[in-house]
Amino acid sequence: MASLDARATPGYPGEGKADADQHREQVGEQLSELQERLYAAGREDEKAPSVLVILQGMDTSGKGGVIRHAIGMVDPQGVQFTSFKTPTKEEREHDFLWRIEKALPEPGMIGIFDRSQYEDVLIVRVEDLVPAQEWEKRYDIINKFEADVVARGTRIIKCFLNVSKAEQQERLLERLNNPEKYWKYNPGDVDARLQWDEYQAAYADALERCNTDVAPWYVVPADRKWYRNWAVAQLLLETLEEMDLSWPEADFDVAEEIERVTAAS
Amino acid sequence: MASLDARATPGYPGEGKADADQHREQVGEQLSELQERLYAAGREDEKAPSVLVILQGMDTSGKGGVIRHAIGMVDPQGVQFTSFKTPTKEEREHDFLWRIEKALPEPGMIGIFDRSQYEDVLIVRVEDLVPAQEWEKRYDIINKFEADVVARGTRIIKCFLNVSKAEQQERLLERLNNPEKYWKYNPGDVDARLQWDEYQAAYADALERCNTDVAPWYVVPADRKWYRNWAVAQLLLETLEEMDLSWPEADFDVAEEIERVTAAS
Repeated sequence: MASLDARATPGYPGEGKADADQHREQVGEQLSELQERLYAAGREDEKAPSVLVILQGMDTSGKGGVIRHAIGMVDPQGVQFTSFKTPTKEEREHDFLWRIEKALPEPGMIGIFDRSQYEDVLIVRVEDLVPAQEWEKRYDIINKFEADVVARGTRIIKCFLNVSKAEQQERLLERLNNPEKYWKYNPGDVDARLQWDEYQAAYADALERCNTDVAPWYVVPADRKWYRNWAVAQLLLETLEEMDLSWPEADFDVAEEIERVTAAS
Repeated sequence: MASLDARATPGYPGEGKADADQHREQVGEQLSELQERLYAAGREDEKAPSVLVILQGMDTSGKGGVIRHAIGMVDPQGVQFTSFKTPTKEEREHDFLWRIEKALPEPGMIGIFDRSQYEDVLIVRVEDLVPAQEWEKRYDIINKFEADVVARGTRIIKCFLNVSKAEQQERLLERLNNPEKYWKYNPGDVDARLQWDEYQAAYADALERCNTDVAPWYVVPADRKWYRNWAVAQLLLETLEEMDLSWPEADFDVAEEIERVTAAS
């Protein structure tokens, strides 16, 4: 993990921050059209594909910022957004994948997970919430689950937003120095920061053991917000492009309908 | 209803279509900040207020366009979107407000209803789906329900997107003349169009009988898409402004937390 550069900008086609809005908006326009095709397919065919974007990262890595600035470029009608917090009593009574399965995107939709099944091998492991022999099994269980989700027609994009420890400190202090950002600050964030190395080790295992062909991980350098937002939008765009979506055919007689509409004046 | 001009542009501060993007984006920037305050309030206080935007209108009036171009300017994390379709079997086994109640926005959220409880005095009335004595009672039931929702802390913005019969015909033909838009066309749309007057009468009653002080109706002229999108964004902005939202106070000791973060390097 330590070798991954959180300030890198791989694949970025522009100069830097100065032209980032322009490049992100360019991606947004293409995204917008392809997302509409995906959504249209979902309206016409209950077996239409879907996309799932999983966002993971330490506090301040920018899951919220990505949702606002990258996912926010897409028609909200086509997005199903789920934020996974501490499991509720009901959720704890079920298998850890129960709440995940329920939140999977419907045909034609883009699902966004703010945290995910990976919390069950991250915080659960670092905080010792279940015995090691239990979370140890979960990597394989997650791999099988994701393979099944992909087989059912959902593309999975797993993004680890990689913020550096130094940048995290700066961002936490920024929140503490601006009353408009107090609400984003949680004293628990420091507790997690104090276990930085344990979290990095847990992330390293999750990224390695669950980096499968059908659902690979993308490590997104997240110290530069403008790059992070562009990069996730670009990953989504590339996925939609690969899906080679066409507009649904008419399931009615076009000429006949034109006549009916023309007559109904 | 016939006296309402679907091409009007009341309150629009600019010249017209040419500067509409600019004005809409201006509203979007203000919206964005106020929506973040609302969302922040919801994270800190389970009694925080919320907002509900109800979109009603004939086919092609642009409910989807409003969601994309007006609501789409807001952080998707803060939006709860519900589209009410033909009731499912489970929904039909309950009172008509059951599914509505379940979809109400949580504290700090902006709820968007694409169609709503009003379908139960619109299509239900025109298509004779329940006896008249039953839907007749629903106006009062809806008024009481909405008063209760408002009392619980939700502002309700009810928008009737008013498209003219001539413009609807043009938009239906546009869909039929463009294979990329076939998916938006449904032969049932013409059936509703053939009952235009019945629908207008049903809308007139709903708008009159449910135009209460706590939850008034707004008739949004919808023949000009650029105006319609600006107007709904502007209504949402004015509502958020009236709410006079402030940023939540810190519920922790700021100086102490700055020390903790500084020490945790």
